[in-house]
Amino acid sequence: MSFSMSRATLPALEIGLNALSAILDKAEAFAAAKKIDPSVLLNTRLAPDMFPLTRQVQIATDLAKNGAARLAGVEPPRYEDKETTIGELKARLAKTVAFIKTLDAKQIDAAPDRQITFPLGPTNKGEMKGDDYLNHFVLPNVYFHLTAAYAILRHCGLEIGKADFLGAIPMKQL
Amino acid sequence: MSFSMSRATLPALEIGLNALSAILDKAEAFAAAKKIDPSVLLNTRLAPDMFPLTRQVQIATDLAKNGAARLAGVEPPRYEDKETTIGELKARLAKTVAFIKTLDAKQIDAAPDRQITFPLGPTNKGEMKGDDYLNHFVLPNVYFHLTAAYAILRHCGLEIGKADFLGAIPMKQL
Repeated sequence: MSFSMSRATLPALEIGLNALSAILDKAEAFAAAKKIDPSVLLNTRLAPDMFPLTRQVQIATDLAKNGAARLAGVEPPRYEDKETTIGELKARLAKTVAFIKTLDAKQIDAAPDRQITFPLGPTNKGEMKGDDYLNHFVLPNVYFHLTAAYAILRHCGLEIGKADFLGAIPMKQL
Repeated sequence: MSFSMSRATLPALEIGLNALSAILDKAEAFAAAKKIDPSVLLNTRLAPDMFPLTRQVQIATDLAKNGAARLAGVEPPRYEDKETTIGELKARLAKTVAFIKTLDAKQIDAAPDRQITFPLGPTNKGEMKGDDYLNHFVLPNVYFHLTAAYAILRHCGLEIGKADFLGAIPMKQL
């Protein structure tokens, strides 16, 4: 069996987003147990000029849906960025996973040599070959924001570990 | 051209490690300009039970060399974890990139269906198919520690941005 671009894209994004959703469940339980307003967690930043948790989750889902959609050659859905609660962020993660599941794996498998053009901020655009776009833009960017969300919650005292970050990966423990 | 497992492994790891090395250059210049002992940065953690910067760099290189070596079917080199300066950490990153460059791309391309066994902590082992090992273990783990290192330095006030994290990716700006 040859290595498949759809397998490098779809399950990786789904597992990562679902893992973040499970981490948000733990964050909600943590806030309730400690009698912390969940919005304190959602507004926490690791540096004054870094994005807070809410925005990290929004960007992770944007990069995942936009990346997977462009690799599949379809228009990504637009989200409104109005989430203010953990429940709403979990709904956004679930909506993104559901969208990713609708994509055609065969289209993504045919993408390695297709030139992909994508917005970089409000005015610039980037262009990359499909396989480069996956390997050097979509995956590092998605994992960056998944890790940032995780690290903000660790910084707040949430007891989570690497297994929570990796999520339901197909690994056998020996 | 079909999607290649070696292309999803080798350039991604090299670019990520080199990007971290360039970030450490900026950290060194920042420490000098602010008259901060660089060991303050190297010992900073985002949470008391998270690893400090030095260990994040060590683990990122371990995961990269071990992951790429196992995919290529060769024994990974062992490092001693004795780094105490930014210069020594940069040498470790360079040594890792040089090792990765010695690996046989054809061996890695033949790895998707090979079962890969790897240590999980001091006593346990994990087992995954080669493509799953790359997609769901090596890449998320390496990006996790690269992001943690970046986030520690942002937390310390270093002025870096997403382009520093992504590094020298093959992207054309339009």
